[in-house]
Amino acid sequence: MRNVTLAATQMACNWDIEDNIARAEALVRDAAGQGAQIVLLQELFATPYFCQDQSPDFFVHAHSFADNPLIARFARLAAELGVVLPVSYFERAGKAFFNSVAIVDADGAVLGNYRKSHIPDGPGYTEKFYFSPGDTGFRAWKTRFATIGVGICWDQWFPESARAMALKGAELLFYPTAIGTEPQDAGIESTGHWQRAMQGSAAANVMPLVASNRVGTEPGLKGTHLTFYGSSFITDPTGDIVRAADRRSEGVLVASFDLDALEAQRQAWGVFRDRRPELYAPLMTMDGQA
Amino acid sequence: MRNVTLAATQMACNWDIEDNIARAEALVRDAAGQGAQIVLLQELFATPYFCQDQSPDFFVHAHSFADNPLIARFARLAAELGVVLPVSYFERAGKAFFNSVAIVDADGAVLGNYRKSHIPDGPGYTEKFYFSPGDTGFRAWKTRFATIGVGICWDQWFPESARAMALKGAELLFYPTAIGTEPQDAGIESTGHWQRAMQGSAAANVMPLVASNRVGTEPGLKGTHLTFYGSSFITDPTGDIVRAADRRSEGVLVASFDLDALEAQRQAWGVFRDRRPELYAPLMTMDGQA
Repeated sequence: MRNVTLAATQMACNWDIEDNIARAEALVRDAAGQGAQIVLLQELFATPYFCQDQSPDFFVHAHSFADNPLIARFARLAAELGVVLPVSYFERAGKAFFNSVAIVDADGAVLGNYRKSHIPDGPGYTEKFYFSPGDTGFRAWKTRFATIGVGICWDQWFPESARAMALKGAELLFYPTAIGTEPQDAGIESTGHWQRAMQGSAAANVMPLVASNRVGTEPGLKGTHLTFYGSSFITDPTGDIVRAADRRSEGVLVASFDLDALEAQRQAWGVFRDRRPELYAPLMTMDGQA
Repeated sequence: MRNVTLAATQMACNWDIEDNIARAEALVRDAAGQGAQIVLLQELFATPYFCQDQSPDFFVHAHSFADNPLIARFARLAAELGVVLPVSYFERAGKAFFNSVAIVDADGAVLGNYRKSHIPDGPGYTEKFYFSPGDTGFRAWKTRFATIGVGICWDQWFPESARAMALKGAELLFYPTAIGTEPQDAGIESTGHWQRAMQGSAAANVMPLVASNRVGTEPGLKGTHLTFYGSSFITDPTGDIVRAADRRSEGVLVASFDLDALEAQRQAWGVFRDRRPELYAPLMTMDGQA
């Protein structure tokens, strides 16, 4: 048995950055207190979701991967608590900017950086104004407790991301997220769609998946608002949601899995035996014309 | 508006082949009577699921694609009723055998043949004894009512299949299926896992998906039994199951969609805008070492 305990967290954010960070730290301490060894914080938790608007004023919140007070602070916290922490942050890299996550191991070592590959763009979610599409590719990170894959929000809608991380050795999938209402159409309620896209990735790769999403209503610059729907969750390896948060509360979800049992289940189910890469050339194109 | 009405069917099979075929035909007539324009029959509906055992006696049930009484009969039926019919059958091709589906358009024209790409193998499902892995690759078929993608059973567990068909132009996904109990372990109940893998493909590709599965208990040659769990379903483009059959009944499910509205929804959601094929090289490998 190789048991591991995972946590999803969920919180609201405001423009008191130090307050956001302190509350995120409190959630990590809460999760660790409940036995969690890998704790997922939500996407860009240090600030409101500034991509609601296109404003040059928000670039000031970006920091480099190498010299980054937020990562350093959570690395100290990871070492103190002995937990693995993917830390989502706004990255400045020379003249480019990315939506990134630093992977911090349970001894506080920063294992590396992942830059969000798939960048959304639409009313209220104008990320293409801020972030270049990531150039790191999908990674699997060998941490103290498990080899993990970490995508970021919109990545979760692309089965390619989950599969690439699984093929590279991930045993568990993590997606920090910021998603809620669609300001242009109050009739769009994407919670179920969002969950099912990820449940499918858990099911197809036969591994648990953890999603952390923010809650609360955040005002934009031009009279708009986004209400984030929380609903953070943890699935089992069949994609069944075994822990779920509600749409408004801050808090922590915790679930445990036996990684050896998961590996045996994956092997017996056979999906990684029967793949046919020689037939997948269409996936390497935008229009299927392979 | 470009409305289309889809049907899933579900039935039990026995060794009276003519009886199976007659009942399949009756289900197609029932579906057409309810307005269905594209009707999905389940996998290998002409016979019991003989892959429960490895026996050379079953190869006699294979027929060529070109000279095939089953396809010819359902092509006549398709023309009579004006419905599109994917017809699952056991294919003999020279010295090789495949698990195939012939795509019959609503005028009875046979548009082509798809050979199941992913071949399962395990207790009760020993398909690798019978079928070579398909060599046709994934296709999208321009029929009278919609451009459709058709995978076969185990293909449904591979997000690569659904994505490839979607990229090639599919607007709807269809999966004839034969799945039920696992004779080596009565504790494995895969219905939810099976559904979620496909719901994820519907959600990720923002298109409806239809699955038809058999029902009934079929005895094997050595005292084993398989009980097929039915649970055929139709999803909407968010992967939500909008029509579902139970685990035992024979019958038909029908649902309608507006293909123009689906196309508009897909475009606005942006997943086919934001793919990153240059990062998907790991998918072209078995072990992620791209």
